[in-house]
Amino acid sequence: MDSNPVKASKPTNPLDGVFKPRSVAVIGASRREGSIGHKIFTNLLDSSFRGPVIPVNPKADAISGVKTYSSVLDIPEPVDLAVIVVPAETVLPMVEGCGRKGVKAVIVISAGFAESGVEGIELQEKLTLICRHYGMKLVGPNCMGVMNTDPSVNLNATFSHVFPPQGKIAMATDSGALGLVILEYASNLGIGLSNFASVGNRADVSSNDLLEYWRDDPGTSAIMLYLEAFGNPKNFIRLARSISPNKPIIALKSGRSSAGSRAAASHTGALATVDVAVDALFAQGGILRVDNLERLFDVADILSRQPIPRGSRVAVLTNGGGPGALTADACAAAGLELPSLAEKTLQGLKALLPARASLGNPIDITDVGAPEYQGALRLLAADNNIDAVIVIFIPPVFACPEDVAAVIREMEPEFRRRGKPLLASFMGKRGCVPGTIMPPGAAGVPSFSFPEAAVYALARARDYGLIRNQPAGRLVNLPGIDRGKARRIVESAGDGWLPAKSVFALLTAYGIKSMALRFAEDLDAAIGAAEDIGYPVALKLDSATIVHKTEVGGVALDIGSSEELRAAYHRMLGRLAAVGRAAEVRGVTVQKMAGEGVELIAGITRDETFGPLILFGLGGIYTELFEDRTLRIQPLTDKDAQEMVRSVRAFKLLEGFRGEPPADVPAVEELLLRLSAMAEDLPRIKELDLNPIRAFTAGKSYTVVDARILIE
Amino acid sequence: MDSNPVKASKPTNPLDGVFKPRSVAVIGASRREGSIGHKIFTNLLDSSFRGPVIPVNPKADAISGVKTYSSVLDIPEPVDLAVIVVPAETVLPMVEGCGRKGVKAVIVISAGFAESGVEGIELQEKLTLICRHYGMKLVGPNCMGVMNTDPSVNLNATFSHVFPPQGKIAMATDSGALGLVILEYASNLGIGLSNFASVGNRADVSSNDLLEYWRDDPGTSAIMLYLEAFGNPKNFIRLARSISPNKPIIALKSGRSSAGSRAAASHTGALATVDVAVDALFAQGGILRVDNLERLFDVADILSRQPIPRGSRVAVLTNGGGPGALTADACAAAGLELPSLAEKTLQGLKALLPARASLGNPIDITDVGAPEYQGALRLLAADNNIDAVIVIFIPPVFACPEDVAAVIREMEPEFRRRGKPLLASFMGKRGCVPGTIMPPGAAGVPSFSFPEAAVYALARARDYGLIRNQPAGRLVNLPGIDRGKARRIVESAGDGWLPAKSVFALLTAYGIKSMALRFAEDLDAAIGAAEDIGYPVALKLDSATIVHKTEVGGVALDIGSSEELRAAYHRMLGRLAAVGRAAEVRGVTVQKMAGEGVELIAGITRDETFGPLILFGLGGIYTELFEDRTLRIQPLTDKDAQEMVRSVRAFKLLEGFRGEPPADVPAVEELLLRLSAMAEDLPRIKELDLNPIRAFTAGKSYTVVDARILIE
Repeated sequence: MDSNPVKASKPTNPLDGVFKPRSVAVIGASRREGSIGHKIFTNLLDSSFRGPVIPVNPKADAISGVKTYSSVLDIPEPVDLAVIVVPAETVLPMVEGCGRKGVKAVIVISAGFAESGVEGIELQEKLTLICRHYGMKLVGPNCMGVMNTDPSVNLNATFSHVFPPQGKIAMATDSGALGLVILEYASNLGIGLSNFASVGNRADVSSNDLLEYWRDDPGTSAIMLYLEAFGNPKNFIRLARSISPNKPIIALKSGRSSAGSRAAASHTGALATVDVAVDALFAQGGILRVDNLERLFDVADILSRQPIPRGSRVAVLTNGGGPGALTADACAAAGLELPSLAEKTLQGLKALLPARASLGNPIDITDVGAPEYQGALRLLAADNNIDAVIVIFIPPVFACPEDVAAVIREMEPEFRRRGKPLLASFMGKRGCVPGTIMPPGAAGVPSFSFPEAAVYALARARDYGLIRNQPAGRLVNLPGIDRGKARRIVESAGDGWLPAKSVFALLTAYGIKSMALRFAEDLDAAIGAAEDIGYPVALKLDSATIVHKTEVGGVALDIGSSEELRAAYHRMLGRLAAVGRAAEVRGVTVQKMAGEGVELIAGITRDETFGPLILFGLGGIYTELFEDRTLRIQPLTDKDAQEMVRSVRAFKLLEGFRGEPPADVPAVEELLLRLSAMAEDLPRIKELDLNPIRAFTAGKSYTVVDARILIE
Repeated sequence: MDSNPVKASKPTNPLDGVFKPRSVAVIGASRREGSIGHKIFTNLLDSSFRGPVIPVNPKADAISGVKTYSSVLDIPEPVDLAVIVVPAETVLPMVEGCGRKGVKAVIVISAGFAESGVEGIELQEKLTLICRHYGMKLVGPNCMGVMNTDPSVNLNATFSHVFPPQGKIAMATDSGALGLVILEYASNLGIGLSNFASVGNRADVSSNDLLEYWRDDPGTSAIMLYLEAFGNPKNFIRLARSISPNKPIIALKSGRSSAGSRAAASHTGALATVDVAVDALFAQGGILRVDNLERLFDVADILSRQPIPRGSRVAVLTNGGGPGALTADACAAAGLELPSLAEKTLQGLKALLPARASLGNPIDITDVGAPEYQGALRLLAADNNIDAVIVIFIPPVFACPEDVAAVIREMEPEFRRRGKPLLASFMGKRGCVPGTIMPPGAAGVPSFSFPEAAVYALARARDYGLIRNQPAGRLVNLPGIDRGKARRIVESAGDGWLPAKSVFALLTAYGIKSMALRFAEDLDAAIGAAEDIGYPVALKLDSATIVHKTEVGGVALDIGSSEELRAAYHRMLGRLAAVGRAAEVRGVTVQKMAGEGVELIAGITRDETFGPLILFGLGGIYTELFEDRTLRIQPLTDKDAQEMVRSVRAFKLLEGFRGEPPADVPAVEELLLRLSAMAEDLPRIKELDLNPIRAFTAGKSYTVVDARILIE
C-alpha cells in the first residue's frame, strides 16, 4: 500500500524498510521529557529524517507540535517503519495493527520478552509469528534501535543522546547498554558511522542479516560487531568469508570466561559458547577479533580511514627517545618490523636534521619543529623499505602541536596515494583534536593518546591485509571413502564406545591410515595374531567401558616374543581382576609397534552451538601440559587444514626440528579433511579421538596408533 | 657556609639538597620567553618555592623583576641547589663556581655529554670529578630537572608546563621527553605526585639513589619508574627488596625488543639489556612491571589511593549487561574471581532492585538510579565473600552520572575502613571528572574510561598484596661444598670447554649429583669402564671443540654388552673420521644409563650488565619448542629457587602429572642454589649447562646426566 513509485529495475532489500524507510511511526511516542518514547520521537526529528515522523499516542493531540494519531491504522499516508515503545503486554496488538497497515518493518524497543523468563519467551514467539505473517522485518525486541547517517536518510530511531557523524563503519551490537557507550565514544573521537543497529533479542533480524545487508551497502567499508552469542555459526562463517576479502569485519565477543558467559547469558537469553570455538569461527571467517571496546574503535578507525598496509615494515618518527623505544617494543611484540631506512632517506634526513638526531628506526628527530617533521615524512613516504609510518609528537618547551598536526594532515594524501597508512600519537591526546589532526568523519589521520594503541591498530590492519590477500579455501572432495560401509558400521553399533575392531574399520572406510590391528578374545588368539603380524607388537585391552587404558595397566608395548606376550597378558588381566573390573574386558588387540615419528593427536567433538569441531595438536603428555592444540568448525576447507597444522607450536617438530627430517605435512592435512568429512556424514559420532598418531617423514604419511569413538 | 641553623638531631640526607633546598640559583636563567633558562626560572617562581630563587646571568640586571648576579660566587646568601642551563662547553666552570660557593647539589639540564659521543663522555667525567671533589650531588646532565610538591617546599626545578598536585607517588624517569608526557598526563588525570626526577645521563644520582631516598620519605607511599637501563642491577634488587614490602614499586622498562633497545641506547648512552633478565630482576625485587605508560598510571593510581586488596574476589556492579560481561572476561583473564555473593547480600539486593535485575556476579542493577547504587554498595562493603568492587556506570536515558558519582564517593570511606578497594568506570570518561568522582590529589576513587583498565589495575594491586605478604627470601649457606678442590680444578684449566672428567669432578665438589662417569682414551679402556660400572651404559664422545655431540653421532645410549659397545665405538669414530674431525676427539666417556625421571635442564650464563644468571627449564627438545625456561640473577635466595621451579609450565610434571608420582622438588631447588654458589665463587665459569638432568621421585633426588662447562 505504498503510494510512492518503486523502480522495478532495482530490487529492494527487505532491510531497506529498517534502514531506509520513507516514513516512520513512533508507537508510544510520549510528551513526557526523559521518557524513551519522547526521546526516540525527538531524536527522529532532530536528526532531520528525510520523511514524515508520525507519533502514535491515543492520549495526546500533538507531540513537539506534530499531530498524533490514536492508532497506526488511522495514519493516512503509508508507513515504512514503526518504532514500538509501549509496555510489553500491549506490543502484540500494536504490531498486529502495523501488519494490517502494511508497515514494512518494526523495531520493538520494549523489554519483557525472551530475556525475562518463560512468559516472555512465549510472548516473543507470538510477536515473531505476527511479523512473519505480514512479511514485516522485526528488529528486537529489547533493543535500542537503529541509525542510518546517510544524509539522504538521516535516521536516528534510537534513544541515544548522540547521532554520530557520517562515516564508513557499520556497527551491530548485541547489548543496548554498550550501544549507548559505543555511540558516545565514537562521537567523542570523531569517528563516523554509516549504520548502527542494536539487535536486542534477535527474534528476527540477526547479526547475520546485518552482515548480508552491509556486504552490499556501498556506504559501508568496515563492519564492527559486538557479539554475545551466535545464532547460526555456519552461516556466520559463510557470510563473513564472502565479506572479509572486501570489507574488514572487526568483532568484540564477550563471554570468554565462565563469569562473562553468565553475565552475557543472563541478559540476552542466549547460550554462551566455548571461547576456543569462537576463536576458530573468527579465524575461519577472516574476522579480526579484539579484546575490548577501546581496541575495537582503534582498529575500526584505521581500517576505515587509511589504506591497508602492504606489509609489516614500519618507520617510527618521534621527537623523544623514550616514547620511540616504547613504540619499538610494542612493534616487536605485535610482529611489526622496524627496518633500516633506504640510503636515500638517510642522506635526506642527515641533511635535514641536527647532528644530535638519531637516524636509526625509530627516528628521533629531537626538539625540532613542523618543517623537519614535514621533510622527514616526505622522505619516508617515498622510502620503499617502509609500509607504514607512526608519527609521535611530545609537546616540547616551544610547543606548537598545531603546526605539526597541520603538516601531518598535509602529507596524508601523499601517503594515501602510495598506499601507506599514516598514524599519529600526540601523546596523551586521543582522537579528534579540533583544528589539529583529524577532521571528524570519514577521512584523516587516526591519532592515538599512546603510541602502543597506534601500533596495535596498525598490526591488526596488517593482519587484515593478510586476510584479504590470501587465497580462498576450498571444500575438497576426497577419494577413497566408502560411505556405505561406514554407515553400516555406525548404524549397527549401539550407544557407547565402539569396539576396537569397528573403530579401525571405520577409519579405513574413510581412508585414514591406522596400524594393522587384530582383535583377540583370548591369549591363544592374541599369540596367533602376533605371529601373523610379526614381533615386536603392542598389546592393548579392549573394553566398552574402560576408556583410559594406561591407567589400569591395559597397555603393554614393544613385546618381542610369545613368552613376553603371555606374561604381559596375565599381568594385564590380573591387575584388572584385582580391582574387580575383569568383567569389563571384551578381549585384547594386537598391533604392530609403530616406528619413530612425531606424536600427534586429532579428533572430533560436538558443541551444542557450533556443531562438530575438528581438533588437532601435539600428542603425548605435552598435549595437556602445554595445551598445544587447535580446533576448527566443520566443514574444513583445505586452507583451514593448512592453518590448523601450522597454528600449533609443535609444527616446528613437523617441519624438521634440530636437524630431523621434515614430516609428511600434506598427509596430516588430508587426515584432518577426512575427519571433517566423517563428522559431516556420521552425526552419530559424538566424539572421536586419534591418540596417538605418528607422523612419518615426507612421503611416508602417518599412522593412527590408537583411537576411540563414542556413538550416540 | 650554610647560615641557617641545622638541627643536629636529624641527620640530613645528601639528596635533601636536591629535593628540599632552602634556596635555588638558576645559572643560565634567561629573559627570553620560550627559552629553557626562562622557563625553569619562572617555574620556580610560579610554584611558590619556599626560599629565594636567584637568577645567574652576566648579561641581564633582572629577570621577571628578580635581581640577577653575574656569577654564583657573587650571591650573598647561601645556595643549596643550583640548576644549570648553559651550553655544555661552559658547564664545567659554572659547576666549579658552585663547588667553591658551597652549593649542596647541582642539576645539569644542559645536553652534550655522554649521550653525544666521545668528547661528551670526557666532559661528563670531568663534571663528575668536580662534583665529587666538592661533595656536591649531581642530577643529570641532559635531564629535565626535579620537583617536590610538598607545600613546605614547592620546588619545580624543571621546564615542564605543569606542576602536578601534591600526592603520594614519587616518579623517576630515564627519559626527559617522557617526563613531560608523564607530568601532563598525571595532571590531566588529577593524579598527585610527591617527588619527580628526570635522571638524564645519571652521572651521579641514579634510580637506585632515588629509591633509597624515597624509601625513607614519609610523603611517598608508591614509586613509579621509567627505566631504559640499569647501572647496578644487584644493588637495585637489594634496594627494591627492602622497599617493596612497604611501598609498591611500579616500573615501565623500554628496550624489550632489539629495536627498542637500539632506540633507548642511542639516546641514553647506556647499553640495553636482555629483557628476560629484566623480568627476573623485577621478580626478585618484588617490582610490578607494566607494559605501557597508561598502565603505569592506572596501577599507581589505585596503589596510592586505595587499600591493597586482601584477595582476588571481586564484585562487579553494573547498569548494563554487556559491559558486565566484558568486565567479567577481563577479570578471568587477569586471574580475578567473581564469587557468588553472600546470602545476606542476595536477600538485600532482591529487596532493593527491580525483578529484571540480575543478581549473579556481575550484578546488573539495570536502569535504576543513585539510591540503588548506594544500597548495593553498602551491601557489598559488608559482604565477606568480596575483596574489592568495580562499579560500572553507563549514562542511561535519565542520565545523572553526578548523583551516582556522589554516592560512590560517599561510600568510599566505608570500603576503606574495611580494607576493600573501590574502583569505578564511568564508561568513556577517565580520571578526574570535575565535581563527580575523584577529587585531585591523594584521596578518592580511581575512575577509568573502560572497565578493562580498572580490572588490570586491580589485578596488579592484588599482585602487590601477594608480594607484600610473602616471606622474605634467605641466602642459604649450603653444606658439602669443597671450594678448595673446585678452585684447583678451575685454576688448572685452560680457556675452552672443560674435559668431561673435570666437569663431573667440579659438580661433585659443589655437592651436585651426577651419574657415575668414567673417561676412557680408547676402546679397551671403555670396555673396562663399562664392565666396572655394569651394563647398560651410555657412550659419549669427549672433545674440547665438538659441543653438540648428538649432531655428529657422538652419543650412543642403552648399550647392553661389550659387543654392542665395540660396534658403537667404531661407528662413532668412523662417522667423525668421515667428516674429517677425528683429531678433535680426546676419548669417550662411559656412564651408567640413568633411570626414568623428568628431564630438566639448568645452567649458568653471564650477562655484561646483570652478571651471572641461573637458568632452569624443561629438558629435551621441548625446551626449545615451548621455551619453557626461566632465569634469575645470582645470588639466589631460597625463595628465588622455589619460584623458579614453580614458574615453568613443566612444574606440573614435577608435581606428578596424570597419576605419576611427584618428583623430588626440594632436591631440584637445592641444585639451583648450588649453581648460584658456584657462579659466585668461580668467575672463570663463563657458561655451564646441565642437560639433561633427571629428577626422580620424592626423596630420590636427581642426577645430572650430561654437563658442559666453558672456562674463560
